[in-house]
Amino acid sequence: MKRTIFFKNKPKIIGTSSIAGPKESNGSLKEFIETKLSDDMYGEKTFEKAESRMLFTAIKNSIINSKKTAKDVDAIISGDLLNQIIASTFSARNFPCGYLGVYNACATFTEALTLGATLIDGGYLDTVVCATSSHFSSAERQYRYPLELGCTRPPQSQWTVTGAGASVLSMQGNGPKIISATIGKVVDFGVTDANNMGAAMASAAADTIFNHLNDCGFSSDEYDLIVTGDLGTLGSRIVKDLLWEKGFDVEKQHVDCGELIYNICEDEYQGGSGAGCSSVVFNSYLYQRLREKKLNKILLVATGALLSSVSSQQGESIPGIAHAVAVEC
Amino acid sequence: MKRTIFFKNKPKIIGTSSIAGPKESNGSLKEFIETKLSDDMYGEKTFEKAESRMLFTAIKNSIINSKKTAKDVDAIISGDLLNQIIASTFSARNFPCGYLGVYNACATFTEALTLGATLIDGGYLDTVVCATSSHFSSAERQYRYPLELGCTRPPQSQWTVTGAGASVLSMQGNGPKIISATIGKVVDFGVTDANNMGAAMASAAADTIFNHLNDCGFSSDEYDLIVTGDLGTLGSRIVKDLLWEKGFDVEKQHVDCGELIYNICEDEYQGGSGAGCSSVVFNSYLYQRLREKKLNKILLVATGALLSSVSSQQGESIPGIAHAVAVEC
Repeated sequence: MKRTIFFKNKPKIIGTSSIAGPKESNGSLKEFIETKLSDDMYGEKTFEKAESRMLFTAIKNSIINSKKTAKDVDAIISGDLLNQIIASTFSARNFPCGYLGVYNACATFTEALTLGATLIDGGYLDTVVCATSSHFSSAERQYRYPLELGCTRPPQSQWTVTGAGASVLSMQGNGPKIISATIGKVVDFGVTDANNMGAAMASAAADTIFNHLNDCGFSSDEYDLIVTGDLGTLGSRIVKDLLWEKGFDVEKQHVDCGELIYNICEDEYQGGSGAGCSSVVFNSYLYQRLREKKLNKILLVATGALLSSVSSQQGESIPGIAHAVAVEC
Repeated sequence: MKRTIFFKNKPKIIGTSSIAGPKESNGSLKEFIETKLSDDMYGEKTFEKAESRMLFTAIKNSIINSKKTAKDVDAIISGDLLNQIIASTFSARNFPCGYLGVYNACATFTEALTLGATLIDGGYLDTVVCATSSHFSSAERQYRYPLELGCTRPPQSQWTVTGAGASVLSMQGNGPKIISATIGKVVDFGVTDANNMGAAMASAAADTIFNHLNDCGFSSDEYDLIVTGDLGTLGSRIVKDLLWEKGFDVEKQHVDCGELIYNICEDEYQGGSGAGCSSVVFNSYLYQRLREKKLNKILLVATGALLSSVSSQQGESIPGIAHAVAVEC
C-alpha cells in the first residue's frame, strides 16, 4: 500500500493570495495577510455569499500574483465547509477553466495541493489553482446554532477562521517546490464531542506524519516546521504525545495554524479551525517565509474532522483525516 | 487552457461492482446489477447509514472482483450527495488505505475516474478505487421535503437513484482502458427550478462534449455511445439540440443513464438522477458490455447540478458541470 507520492518534477507554487475577516486580520499574522476585510459580510447579503466572494478574490489575486491571466489556468481545485461546497462552486462559476470540487473538511487544502501537484508533475495540466475557504458565521449556523442564540462555547471549542487562501501551481515560473505528499486515511479516535475537534483529528494527523516520515526515511529534524492545520492547543498536545509514543519527537518542529492565527484570548479557546485556517496561514505567512528562504523545508499537514450535523445526530463518532504536503524553497 | 487529459499508459478498469435498491433492481438493467437489495434500509436504522453501507459494499466487492485485497488498494476516491459527503467518509473508515473525498454533485463519478486515472497513469499510485453513491430517501429529505409530507412531484422532476458503484483502476490486470478525460467547467444556464435539473445540467454537458470532441479532433462517430449521467428525457433533448447547433449530431450515439435505469413510468417522470446513477449504470451494464467487446469505445459524461438548499433559498441559479471520461475495450 502506497501512501506517499514523490514528485519527480517538483511542481512550483508560483504565487499565492490570502484574504481574511476582521478578527483574523488583527491576529498574529496581520502583516502577512494580503486582503484584510473590515466587514465579514464583504458587501454581500449573506455569510455564504460573502464566503464565496472571499474565495473568488483569493483565487483571482493568486492568479494576478503569479503573473498569469485567468485564461492561463487549466483548472481550479477547491473546496469549503458549506453543504455541497457552494462557496467553491459559485466562485468557480466566474472563471473560464475546469473545476474539480474536493472535500475533506479542514484537510481540504492539502488534498487540493496533492491532486494539483499530481496533475502538474505528470504534465497533464500546465497551471492549476488550489484553494479553500471557511467563514465563522456560515459554519456556525450550519454546524451548530443560530448566531442570534448567543450560545456559550465550551473551553475545548475552536473558532472557525473567516478567510480564504489560494496557491497557483505550475512548472513555469519561480517559487517553493512541492516535493512529496502523503495521502491521509480515515482514522477514528472515538471522539463524539463535536466541540472537541482537535482531539478527533489528532490521531489522523499523527498517523499521516508517522507514515510520511517512515516512507521518506526521515527523522523529524528533516523539516524546519511540521505544521498541522487546526488541531488547536489541546489537539497539538495530543499529536505530539502520539508521535512521541511512535518514536518521533516533534516538539521542536511542530506548530499549528489554529494556534498561530489568533492572539488567543478567551473567545477562541483552543484557536482557529476551518478549511480556511491552514489555507490562510500557508498562503500568507508560510509562503512568504519560504520565498525569503527563512524557512527551507516544511511539512504542511491540514487536518479535517469528518462529521456532519446529521452524522452527529445519528450517534456517529467523528473520524479525522490529514493529508501532508512537503514544500521546500 | 487545457481541458482534456490524454493518458499515455491508459489505466485499466480491472474490476467493478454495483449495488442498487429495489426499484432500480427491477428496472431495465436488473440483469446487470451485482447486488440487488430487497429493502432500501439495507438493515440499517437510517437512510444515511444505509447509503454508506451500500457504498462500502460496492467498494469491497469491486476489490474482490478485481482479485485484489483491501491491502492492495492505495487510495479510495469517492463522493456522494449528502452534506459533508458522509456516506463516503464513513464507508472509507472501514478500509486501511488513503481517502480523497470529491464532490461535483452527480458529476462526481467521472471526476473521481479522472483523478484516479491521473494517479495511476503517472505511476504515483498502483491501485485506486473510484466510487459514488446516492439514495432516494436521504437525498429527498435533505434537498426537498420530508418523505412523510407526500409532496406531489412536478413533471420535470427526476428520481434519485438508490445505488452505488465502484471501479478499481490499476496498470496490473485486465479490463477496459481509460484513454482520456475532459475536465468540466461550471456552466450557468440560468435555470432556477430545483425540480428541473436536466435543463440546468444540459449546457454543461454540451460544453464538455463539444470541447472533448474538438480537443481530440473527433467526430461524434468516434464513439459507440456518448453516455450522459442524469439529464433525463428533457435534458437529453436539450443537450442534443445544443450540440447540433455547435455542429455535432449525437442523435445516434447519445444515451442517458437516467433514461436507461428505470422502466420509466409516472413516478420517475424524466428518469433517474443522483451521484449513484451514472455510477450504477457504468459499473454494471456499460462495463460488462465493454468487457464482452459489444461496446468498443464510449464517452461517459456524468453531469452535476451544483446547488444546495441554501443556495436556492438565497436566490441563486443552478450551475451545472460535466466531466467526460473516454473508455475503450
